[in-house]
Amino acid sequence: MTEQPLRLGVVGLGRAFTLMLPTFVRHPAVRLVACADPRAVARDCFVHDFGGRAHDTVQALCDDPEVEAIYLASPHQFHVDHVQIAARAGKHVLVEKPMALRLEDCRAMIASADAAGVHLMVGHSHSFDQPYLTTRALIESGEFGAVRMISALNCTDYLYRPRRPEELVTAEGGGAVFSQAPHQVELVRLLAGSEVRSVRAVTGIWDSERPTEGAYTAFLTFANGAAASLTYNGYGHFDTDALSSWIGEMGQVRDPDGHGSARRVLRTVKMAAEEAALKDKRAYGTTVTAATARAQTPPVAYNHFGFVLVACERGALRPMPNGVEIYGDDEKRFEPLPAPDVPRREVIDELVAAVRDGRPPLHSGRWGMATVEVCLALLRSAAEEREVRI
Amino acid sequence: MTEQPLRLGVVGLGRAFTLMLPTFVRHPAVRLVACADPRAVARDCFVHDFGGRAHDTVQALCDDPEVEAIYLASPHQFHVDHVQIAARAGKHVLVEKPMALRLEDCRAMIASADAAGVHLMVGHSHSFDQPYLTTRALIESGEFGAVRMISALNCTDYLYRPRRPEELVTAEGGGAVFSQAPHQVELVRLLAGSEVRSVRAVTGIWDSERPTEGAYTAFLTFANGAAASLTYNGYGHFDTDALSSWIGEMGQVRDPDGHGSARRVLRTVKMAAEEAALKDKRAYGTTVTAATARAQTPPVAYNHFGFVLVACERGALRPMPNGVEIYGDDEKRFEPLPAPDVPRREVIDELVAAVRDGRPPLHSGRWGMATVEVCLALLRSAAEEREVRI
Ligand SMILES: NC(=O)c1ccc[n+]([C@@H]2O[C@H](COP(=O)([O-])OP(=O)(O)OC[C@H]3O[C@@H](n4cnc5c(N)ncnc54)[C@H](O)[C@@H]3O)[C@@H](O)[C@H]2O)c1
Ligand SMILES: NC(=O)c1ccc[n+]([C@@H]2O[C@H](COP(=O)([O-])OP(=O)(O)OC[C@H]3O[C@@H](n4cnc5c(N)ncnc54)[C@H](O)[C@@H]3O)[C@@H](O)[C@H]2O)c1
Repeated sequence: MTEQPLRLGVVGLGRAFTLMLPTFVRHPAVRLVACADPRAVARDCFVHDFGGRAHDTVQALCDDPEVEAIYLASPHQFHVDHVQIAARAGKHVLVEKPMALRLEDCRAMIASADAAGVHLMVGHSHSFDQPYLTTRALIESGEFGAVRMISALNCTDYLYRPRRPEELVTAEGGGAVFSQAPHQVELVRLLAGSEVRSVRAVTGIWDSERPTEGAYTAFLTFANGAAASLTYNGYGHFDTDALSSWIGEMGQVRDPDGHGSARRVLRTVKMAAEEAALKDKRAYGTTVTAATARAQTPPVAYNHFGFVLVACERGALRPMPNGVEIYGDDEKRFEPLPAPDVPRREVIDELVAAVRDGRPPLHSGRWGMATVEVCLALLRSAAEEREVRI
Repeated sequence: MTEQPLRLGVVGLGRAFTLMLPTFVRHPAVRLVACADPRAVARDCFVHDFGGRAHDTVQALCDDPEVEAIYLASPHQFHVDHVQIAARAGKHVLVEKPMALRLEDCRAMIASADAAGVHLMVGHSHSFDQPYLTTRALIESGEFGAVRMISALNCTDYLYRPRRPEELVTAEGGGAVFSQAPHQVELVRLLAGSEVRSVRAVTGIWDSERPTEGAYTAFLTFANGAAASLTYNGYGHFDTDALSSWIGEMGQVRDPDGHGSARRVLRTVKMAAEEAALKDKRAYGTTVTAATARAQTPPVAYNHFGFVLVACERGALRPMPNGVEIYGDDEKRFEPLPAPDVPRREVIDELVAAVRDGRPPLHSGRWGMATVEVCLALLRSAAEEREVRI
């Protein structure tokens, strides 16, 4: 690579940023040069870690001539404004999922990127994970015929991780449908290779102390005739990592005996403010820094999003954290994937390919908007107790 | 037990009968006394095995004064006539699933049993399996709150087992929706503890040489607000027994390396007649007899029907072949079930309780009819590409 690394400015140095940090510190094609975040401790840490500039506002960050592209990881509700600021300043944007909370916001974001001639990408989502991309490639090889049915099941302790108050209010973008469904919807869309036509769903709000969706189950049909069943349960009961040899969402080795730990930690806080502080403590700037990210044991496998099974006409494919299980008419085999050198490298690869080589990203604004549409349909189907056409 | 065993007459000594045979030869509360089947080899074997009487017709069997109740395991299409013959002769009936192929047939069967004052039961279905009954009891204990979401996934080589020609024609009762969905629908109904209100489904006919449903995926909602995702794939690709430590549907130990074996065996036959003969060879009378059933290694675990996960408000329950995995808010535990002494004893227990003690069976005619209604809705939803209300 003779090219200079992509110079990235970061908006929002919170939890999402910490999850991308192992990528940023290892991927040779990207360099962090500036940031914006209201939290001083995070800004100071950033300058210490990367020697870049900390800006007071998103506008100032986007006006920074050193910055080529923005990684936008502020809370959902800011995505629409921040993307437009970045686009107007001529900066490419990688905005975290969910792209936004309303379709008109998505449309405005796409329009401003189009008008400015910049790339708008949405991610990380788990549809970037290499095992799903490899599964998609196996489908496209034609060896197994058309994709027909996809089963996706993910059970985690999502709802009991420390949250900001608005993350527990659906109207403000809280809950599993806005925060977790995008992953599952996108990986299923990727695997189906087609757009969603209908959604029937039921959502679950089962804990009155955390009154937002902690669970959902949905039935999707696609334009190409495929169907998918998506189930997410974030109530910290069953854990689907049990079906992936206890390899966690980030490709890390997990402790099978950690049951109930999220609830136990959360019981130590009494008020919403304490809970937000607990979230911040786990975010970038105090316990997590570039140094801790570099020191972290590298993941043994790829990121993943629970149990996934793809039924094709002449075979079934089961993406696993370390490869793809292949079940043909006559034989079964395992297509191994070597442990990733850079975690989530797929995200940066796609961004750099777009910005440097003009290769249109899969995870474009339109792609992200289609996901938001499905998530909104999921909520509507549950509320109106009927199938929703898209 | 001072009571005399229930004297059972059998209609249809085929594959279903061989699956009940280990139960019949071991359960102390039942005794086989007569049979009817067009296959002479099966009739002769029965008389040799049980010393009972082989009748020429179902009518003659039902008129046999020695017979108290009928186990009716003729092909689906005969169930409606045979049940009515039995009921009119004053005999209780245990009819195999699916109860019938049309709702009006189910109604006629229920009416004739009611008119005669006999019990009409439908089964075996996997909703009799002890792990599901135990799971249901755990739910009813109230410890975990209301049932909310059920996930059921079963992947087998169903479509490639030897079949009679009509078993490959949906209009004649062939395919996974008529033959396999009853199991999954019933166990999910049992666990939900409520009746089905809507069905959205997609079915799969992916092998033109066996042009009936080999797969389906369905989304069910229940009157109590619960929802369930049901997926069945009988194309012999992925095998869900991989998720149950290779314990098979009958509670037996399976060979993890048997992938593709059903297809291989089937390739040895050239014509439909040869395939039907292959099915008969595996049925009762030649390779399977009372002696082979008695000699069979007893199952190490209970019957089961694939991967099942029940999400309640305050816990998740995962029925396994040998117990129930319990995931509460704070701890996980395993409720073990000792290996069954008599396989499928639950079926005979329920029948005997009804006939001897007048205890109304769970798996009544009305119960079986509700299942047929869901299966028909499943086919209709797939055909009309819309949600079907029940
Ligand atoms: N892809 C993933 O795996 C993943 C994981 C977590 C979060 N996310 C997404 O990332 C986004 C942020 O979520 P989070 O969990 O990191 O939240 P967070 O609360 O941990 O972090 C948000 C950060 O943004 C900062 N911030 C708040 N307002 C800002 C503003 N106006 N300008 C700049 N910075 C601002 C906060 O100080 C904080 O540091 C959400 O959209 C979420 O869905 C994605
Ligand atoms: N519960 C289960 O696990 C299970 C398993 C297999 C089959 N079944 C059910 O059992 C029924 C039979 O299926 P099968 O696979 O055993 O079929 P099969 O073809 O193996 O057996 C049917 C038997 O009925 C006999 N028969 C045919 N016409 C008859 C008649 N008019 N009178 C009396 N006997 C007659 C045949 O000779 C044969 O012996 C079906 O309804 C099927 O759904 C249930």
